[in-house]
Amino acid sequence: MAIRALVFDTFGTLVDWRSGVAREAERLIPGLDGGAFADAWRARYQPSMEAVRSGKRPFVDLDTLQAESLDGLLADLGRADAGTAVKRELVLAWHRLDAWPEVPAAMADLRKAFVLAPLSNGHVRLIVALARRNGLVFDAVLGAEFSRDYKPKPALYRDAVAALGFCADETLMVAAHSDDLAAAAGEGLSTAHVARPSENGPAGGETGPAVAVTFAARDLADLARQLGA
Amino acid sequence: MAIRALVFDTFGTLVDWRSGVAREAERLIPGLDGGAFADAWRARYQPSMEAVRSGKRPFVDLDTLQAESLDGLLADLGRADAGTAVKRELVLAWHRLDAWPEVPAAMADLRKAFVLAPLSNGHVRLIVALARRNGLVFDAVLGAEFSRDYKPKPALYRDAVAALGFCADETLMVAAHSDDLAAAAGEGLSTAHVARPSENGPAGGETGPAVAVTFAARDLADLARQLGA
Repeated sequence: MAIRALVFDTFGTLVDWRSGVAREAERLIPGLDGGAFADAWRARYQPSMEAVRSGKRPFVDLDTLQAESLDGLLADLGRADAGTAVKRELVLAWHRLDAWPEVPAAMADLRKAFVLAPLSNGHVRLIVALARRNGLVFDAVLGAEFSRDYKPKPALYRDAVAALGFCADETLMVAAHSDDLAAAAGEGLSTAHVARPSENGPAGGETGPAVAVTFAARDLADLARQLGA
Repeated sequence: MAIRALVFDTFGTLVDWRSGVAREAERLIPGLDGGAFADAWRARYQPSMEAVRSGKRPFVDLDTLQAESLDGLLADLGRADAGTAVKRELVLAWHRLDAWPEVPAAMADLRKAFVLAPLSNGHVRLIVALARRNGLVFDAVLGAEFSRDYKPKPALYRDAVAALGFCADETLMVAAHSDDLAAAAGEGLSTAHVARPSENGPAGGETGPAVAVTFAARDLADLARQLGA
């Protein structure tokens, strides 16, 4: 088996969502505990996608889901009086996240040897914003908007393999989350776990895979080394 | 109106399909008139997409359509004995096209100022192959496979505008074909015509727009200058 293409989870794997959301939230709502706010918002992330995954509603993008979650979150926090402009800026916080430090250089190395695409629940313009901010270059943008559904629905992994045109096991799903990798492996993709021990701040993050994977890496630079890139 | 994103027709606008297909055909089938072969194949291009556009068949990618057209073309030419390997390589000729000479440098300049994406009837792996071969960098790959239909169906232009997230008139459709630009303008996009007077070899090509456009350019470098990139 030779790896030909890498497809990437984005939030948590390539970019540090918690620090970025916390920073923007504290800027926009003085006195807020940004980290706790980011955690509470992220806790609504998986449930928000479920109505699309289950077919109860047609596909809507992550900005729409985040805006809906935000309304509930602000109400729970007694901050329902946050204005429309602040709420719009908070949703855009997810467009202004920084990559983990080693990511830009490792991605540049990987792109010399492999075809690269995000396979994320983020939609195209969100991914474009993150890629531009952090100097990441992809060959295509796959994932939620391409498949009009959300991970871990199997179609997203299958569509990504078909779009890039290599065999499933030549396509390497890269993620910091074992559930994402398990779903990818279920569709025959090769898998790489990247440890992100500080993804969730004080609550930690996955330091290693909880499922069988093809590669387990300390970070993306380590994965590039293991792949000979 | 400020332009924020450029979306590109690919075959004829960014890459010289006729020379590339002719070159590969002459390599693979000795004694063939490559230019005439390319013209005859291209003549089957628009009709081949019609079954998808009309809803008579589900979306299939351009490699599939080109392979089907090729069987008919070879039969007409009395070359139906061409083997499977040769036929596969001929389909891949469309993955090995060269950009028009000024395109790589102009695209690099444009990318400093604008978000760039193909809006082509080519599918993702075909676009990735052409982009890699010619050193073109896109922010996303939109078009046929993203929308699962073929231009000039209006959905492709609307989907591209929605995916990039700017207003329709901030999104500039760039093409060497007036019919493509007319369809884009019908969905509110701004339009740029790029002259490709040798697209069809001895049969010429569009030296200027046949419809009203926002910009008319001699080539992509001229368009970049007009846009201040």
